[in-house]
Amino acid sequence: MTEVMKAWRLRSRPVGEIADGDLELVTEPIPPLDEGQVLVEVNYVSLDPTNRIWMSDMDQYMPPVALGDIMRAGIAGKVLESRHDDFEPGMTVGGLGGCATHFVADGATIQQIPEIPGVPLAKLFGSLGGTGLTAYFGLLDICDPRPGETLVVSAASGAVGSVVGQIGKIKGCRVIGIAGGEKKCRYVVDELGFDACIDYKNEDVGARLDELCPDGIDMNFENVGGDIMEAVMSRMNDFGRMALCGMISTYNDSEEQLGPKSWPLILMRRLKVQGFIISDYANRFAEGGAQLGTWAAEGRIRTREDIRPGIENAIVAMKDLYVGGNFGKLLLEVKAP
Amino acid sequence: MTEVMKAWRLRSRPVGEIADGDLELVTEPIPPLDEGQVLVEVNYVSLDPTNRIWMSDMDQYMPPVALGDIMRAGIAGKVLESRHDDFEPGMTVGGLGGCATHFVADGATIQQIPEIPGVPLAKLFGSLGGTGLTAYFGLLDICDPRPGETLVVSAASGAVGSVVGQIGKIKGCRVIGIAGGEKKCRYVVDELGFDACIDYKNEDVGARLDELCPDGIDMNFENVGGDIMEAVMSRMNDFGRMALCGMISTYNDSEEQLGPKSWPLILMRRLKVQGFIISDYANRFAEGGAQLGTWAAEGRIRTREDIRPGIENAIVAMKDLYVGGNFGKLLLEVKAP
Repeated sequence: MTEVMKAWRLRSRPVGEIADGDLELVTEPIPPLDEGQVLVEVNYVSLDPTNRIWMSDMDQYMPPVALGDIMRAGIAGKVLESRHDDFEPGMTVGGLGGCATHFVADGATIQQIPEIPGVPLAKLFGSLGGTGLTAYFGLLDICDPRPGETLVVSAASGAVGSVVGQIGKIKGCRVIGIAGGEKKCRYVVDELGFDACIDYKNEDVGARLDELCPDGIDMNFENVGGDIMEAVMSRMNDFGRMALCGMISTYNDSEEQLGPKSWPLILMRRLKVQGFIISDYANRFAEGGAQLGTWAAEGRIRTREDIRPGIENAIVAMKDLYVGGNFGKLLLEVKAP
Repeated sequence: MTEVMKAWRLRSRPVGEIADGDLELVTEPIPPLDEGQVLVEVNYVSLDPTNRIWMSDMDQYMPPVALGDIMRAGIAGKVLESRHDDFEPGMTVGGLGGCATHFVADGATIQQIPEIPGVPLAKLFGSLGGTGLTAYFGLLDICDPRPGETLVVSAASGAVGSVVGQIGKIKGCRVIGIAGGEKKCRYVVDELGFDACIDYKNEDVGARLDELCPDGIDMNFENVGGDIMEAVMSRMNDFGRMALCGMISTYNDSEEQLGPKSWPLILMRRLKVQGFIISDYANRFAEGGAQLGTWAAEGRIRTREDIRPGIENAIVAMKDLYVGGNFGKLLLEVKAP
């Protein structure tokens, strides 16, 4: 059995963009298992906007990664060794782990990923797992979409946004996406079935929203924050709902920002603005997973994965997230399953 | 019958604080009634923070008062003449009217105020009417208070805040008020029964919140905005609820403001921030009014009115609202009932 592993350890907290020395790839012995632990050989590392939050010491929803620790990340892989009754060697599992070739996980933090014939692990874990559930609960629980309403989704070609918009269409809404570049926008409309998509890199988002949403916006599923959110928020209708899922445009900001200037509209237009984190819905994952699986099997939800091979490429891939360089759910393939 | 009336007409939109020429007191003929209209002799004009919003042309929840029109305000008074089947001379009515001695109202915009022996009209209309209902629906519907939770109420000695805190106590919450000056703070604790009150004019609000809410804040009923709201918002617990009722501290701002720097906490702490306007609850006024009346009769809700006599004193009284110069629900007594 392999006795060493490679792992990215956090050496310093990024100021602004992630710099090369912030994470270090080290080769080190695989630690022995304690009772209740499981050794996972990692197939995929999920690279998500939230990783950047965990690297900082900003006020956040979990403790930040401690300096010196292995960088936290969602992982999927195969059990090599187990000292936990629920897991045995050979099982495919997923959960919170680290950006590494191997990870010693507490059994309580991982779960088995059921094999579905014809659905590759990258899709099952990457697009229909955490990010799909994020789309599902955020849209249905917070925005409460009703037929005929207008939904605007930022980062529309991204892992979460793409599923949000497709669920919006299933629910009978008019769905407008915002994405970067003509290629992504075409994908959002032609392949995902959104009603329209605004190219924020080449179009005036506010002017296009005025054209595409002449009756205003009822729901905003927000993944981006900053100017794009402001453009959407300022056009919300009375009793509009905004689900705050992420604000990736601000994660690399090194100075403290103020909130949107549309803040008073929360009062004037009686908006509901609500934040959520997918882990809050853990007790309803089965419900969401079953529904997403059904829709995917029916071809009503399509997903796209952007798979980057090689543990050594983690930083390059991660940086792409913040400039829109990925196209689909970003995964690091540490070892093909 | 009187054939002339006095009325404050809006001449220019205030920039910053209300200036003397912004409103003009004119004496003019009482206009004849059209079918469906009612002539009300005004007893009380309700002076509320929202009046300042209506004077501006900011994005708001109703059309602003047009330049040249009589200044809009809540009124209570006596029907002098009626061309509407629901009203007859001598009835006491209330609703949206104008800052004037007489007002010609459409019958649809006013309603009869039932007489309750022992309860003066100023209290019934001023404290248990619109402002009491604002407290009732905003707290119960948006904050959803649960026993043992901590509620922070700004403008705690004000017409709305004082009722919010008392309902919070009825619901078993720990209630912390924020008010200006020792006298108001004493009133909030000693007479209204809040657990504590922070004097924002003489104390460091953030430091006092840390002392008084060591376990954080679950609910914020916000009437003030600005720095006070920021101090509360930054201390909200996971899954906290903020009801945005008003942001009086910003209404005199002549430059556009940005939102609170705690905005990212909506995501990190999964807050719900929701605005509301009392008129949205019109179909539930009977329910709220009955409950408030019961609590008031049981002595569980106390109110205080700050009554200023004389139509000519409207501006002086109104300005007091924005510097905390009133103590209790501010009313202009145009004619004693």
